[in-house]
Amino acid sequence: MSSTIPTESEIERLHLHEIEEIIRAGDAKQIADLVAGLDTDTLRRAYSMLDHELWESMGSMLNPEGYADVIARLAEAQAVKLLEGLEPDRAADIIEELPADIAGDLLREMNQDYTANILQQIENPSESEELRERAAYQWDSAGGLMSDQVVSFPITATVGEVLSDLSGNAEEYSDRDVQYVYVVDEEGVLKGVLPLRSLVLTARKTPVSKIMIGNPLSVRVDRPARDLLGIFATASFFGLPVVDADGQLEGIVSREAVQEAMADQQTEDYLKAAGIVGGEELRSMPLRSRSLRRLIWLIPNILLNIMAASVIALYQDTLEAVIALAVFLPIVSDMSGCSGNQAVAVSIRELTLGIIRPKDFRRVIFKEGLLGLINGIVLGCLLGTAAGLWQGNLVLGLVIGCALALNTLMSVLLGGLVPLFLKKLKADPALASGPVLTTCTDMCGFFLVLGLASLVLGQLT
Amino acid sequence: MSSTIPTESEIERLHLHEIEEIIRAGDAKQIADLVAGLDTDTLRRAYSMLDHELWESMGSMLNPEGYADVIARLAEAQAVKLLEGLEPDRAADIIEELPADIAGDLLREMNQDYTANILQQIENPSESEELRERAAYQWDSAGGLMSDQVVSFPITATVGEVLSDLSGNAEEYSDRDVQYVYVVDEEGVLKGVLPLRSLVLTARKTPVSKIMIGNPLSVRVDRPARDLLGIFATASFFGLPVVDADGQLEGIVSREAVQEAMADQQTEDYLKAAGIVGGEELRSMPLRSRSLRRLIWLIPNILLNIMAASVIALYQDTLEAVIALAVFLPIVSDMSGCSGNQAVAVSIRELTLGIIRPKDFRRVIFKEGLLGLINGIVLGCLLGTAAGLWQGNLVLGLVIGCALALNTLMSVLLGGLVPLFLKKLKADPALASGPVLTTCTDMCGFFLVLGLASLVLGQLT
Repeated sequence: MSSTIPTESEIERLHLHEIEEIIRAGDAKQIADLVAGLDTDTLRRAYSMLDHELWESMGSMLNPEGYADVIARLAEAQAVKLLEGLEPDRAADIIEELPADIAGDLLREMNQDYTANILQQIENPSESEELRERAAYQWDSAGGLMSDQVVSFPITATVGEVLSDLSGNAEEYSDRDVQYVYVVDEEGVLKGVLPLRSLVLTARKTPVSKIMIGNPLSVRVDRPARDLLGIFATASFFGLPVVDADGQLEGIVSREAVQEAMADQQTEDYLKAAGIVGGEELRSMPLRSRSLRRLIWLIPNILLNIMAASVIALYQDTLEAVIALAVFLPIVSDMSGCSGNQAVAVSIRELTLGIIRPKDFRRVIFKEGLLGLINGIVLGCLLGTAAGLWQGNLVLGLVIGCALALNTLMSVLLGGLVPLFLKKLKADPALASGPVLTTCTDMCGFFLVLGLASLVLGQLT
Repeated sequence: MSSTIPTESEIERLHLHEIEEIIRAGDAKQIADLVAGLDTDTLRRAYSMLDHELWESMGSMLNPEGYADVIARLAEAQAVKLLEGLEPDRAADIIEELPADIAGDLLREMNQDYTANILQQIENPSESEELRERAAYQWDSAGGLMSDQVVSFPITATVGEVLSDLSGNAEEYSDRDVQYVYVVDEEGVLKGVLPLRSLVLTARKTPVSKIMIGNPLSVRVDRPARDLLGIFATASFFGLPVVDADGQLEGIVSREAVQEAMADQQTEDYLKAAGIVGGEELRSMPLRSRSLRRLIWLIPNILLNIMAASVIALYQDTLEAVIALAVFLPIVSDMSGCSGNQAVAVSIRELTLGIIRPKDFRRVIFKEGLLGLINGIVLGCLLGTAAGLWQGNLVLGLVIGCALALNTLMSVLLGGLVPLFLKKLKADPALASGPVLTTCTDMCGFFLVLGLASLVLGQLT
């Protein structure tokens, strides 16, 4: 522990071009000191701003341990790109230095062929096999989030043996957050847990089987983060042991890892809601893939938009008769879209918090129906008055006001319900709710404005 | 530790009406067992679904400790509502049972008069003062996030005194995640830190001042969560001591609390981006406040929308001449809006990750400019072709295609930059980026479609 945290302004002072100069100077010792000293933010920012080639040449100056330290602190997408640029044997050396959960995350995200290449280069076959298993778990399952830094002893051990192993390997264990020690049988099946306190307070010859807490709480490798968060919320455990289908102890998942995963999930939802497929984009990614992933979401949107706008084409005569309506078509559809999106966000939030489930649609209809009615009337009165005064045509104002009121009610109801139905259909509510809602709102808005106008066309012109 | 976690399907089986029946039966012991046994999700969902009065009558059956346990597990907005319905003295009893950080969060969110009432009812003046201070900290600062569960000893103590205090109060400390013990001088100023390990390995008569690590890393109460996350990312501390302006030890902030705060921040950003002012809404909140908070964001939007649509009014003659253009106005503005929103989300994400800062606008211009050009050309060709074929008018297709291409480029650039400028102006990028972007995109889109059409009006008709 040292008391020198650079403050915001000190970090500012270490300009990117100074970092660049140190890297270009190419002194291995200086570079190692530099990267060890950079805080995470500056490191990520420097990665984004400086040439990729510069990073590659810098990487070649670091030993695998130092390189692993850099990789562990970069954003995941940045780390993947840097690793994919290396020879597989060099990448394997670095992967071996990483904590198992980070290594698993990176291997999962990399090109599959390249992952296979790296795994072949890892000399220790059991380590290679473990990483292969890990990369196959869902990133947000207990298996994907667990750390392998778990301390376990055979059930036949005595308290004295455990204590002398712990103190004999104090150096090695000092990295780990050892809170509990686990007890396993000869097959590696989890049998009990030993709080450190009871170890210290017990005669050394006692077998651990006498003092362990048997049948401990554990979670399966495939248990999703969502569930784990619930378990951690109801109890003050620091970590939970993770077991495979046979009950063998595989690792320990910490509260911290679970919370980080949930935060990642919410960030992904946010980006997906804005139309970033995959839920992650950094501007340091290759232009081609950024452009393609955005287009994949935009192109179907063109079709939906054309579909919605074709309603306008149906009413071309009405529009020709009262050309002023053209001004209000986008206003009504945009405003209702905004109201609907508010309801979408609240539904996605309540789904994430576990407050509603897809089957609770009646409650959403009731709660959003009332709100849609009130906000629809308020917004309809405002826009209707504005339209009537602007165009000097009260009937026009009435048409526009009614159309916005009805369309707001429809859009708020639909916005509240669409995420529930998409969730029910196992589709991703964050990615798909927006386009579905906008298309319906636009169609319905155009139809209401032009349909109502057609009904009173005599009074309008 | 017990091994009975209810699985998803067991939780499902405990239907809400069963919970309701137990509460209505009104047996205090049964109710206490019920709420202690419910997982967080079911508790929050039950709160949402059941009558507020039912919860009030249930609350009256619980002792302050049991009630505090419920309050601590509800979503913040739910807990605030429940507390605000109580008499201040009852609320004060419950607040006293809560962990200090949760108590501070709730007091901060409650009506200010009511908070003052509650604080007056707390008997211990130092506790009341501490909570008052806490409620005044920013929720996402070290002061707002710290726990008061910190163990400290005077610098004059010996190792023996510390150890006997620790074992004498083992019961009390067992709740706390004691990883380090802190050393303070007679003014309460933080002077050092004692790892538990070195305590055990040192002769009992040694003064703690000899073995403590002096000048330890600490953070000020006003340090924002964003910074703390950076510190935790570069070092493997479990927690950091928090000090006031005079260096007095106030509490300890854990890695977990910081990560939770950042996750909350991202959720807020997501809701704000969809137009939920304040970044939080649950459907159990009163209709009036939900409706008002949504309207506060929607009403200025009407004005912006009218401003944008007034461009259409300027070109009424062109539109009258080629009425088919009316179909494409909303398509061009919606599509560009979507492209721009993608760029907004990536900028907000990169700002949160610390990868870009407001002054990095040149990089955003470069990165989004290229992407906007490519996606603009692709989308323009697609929509232009569709428009030309549909209306059987190639010039119309050309006008629409060019308008969409140019407007996409503009919108993507603007979407990337707006969050940076808003951040620079200390405005909230999540809340304001959307309306600013949409207004500009709409205006510019209408202008491009109708302006280009006016230029080639002879060929169009």
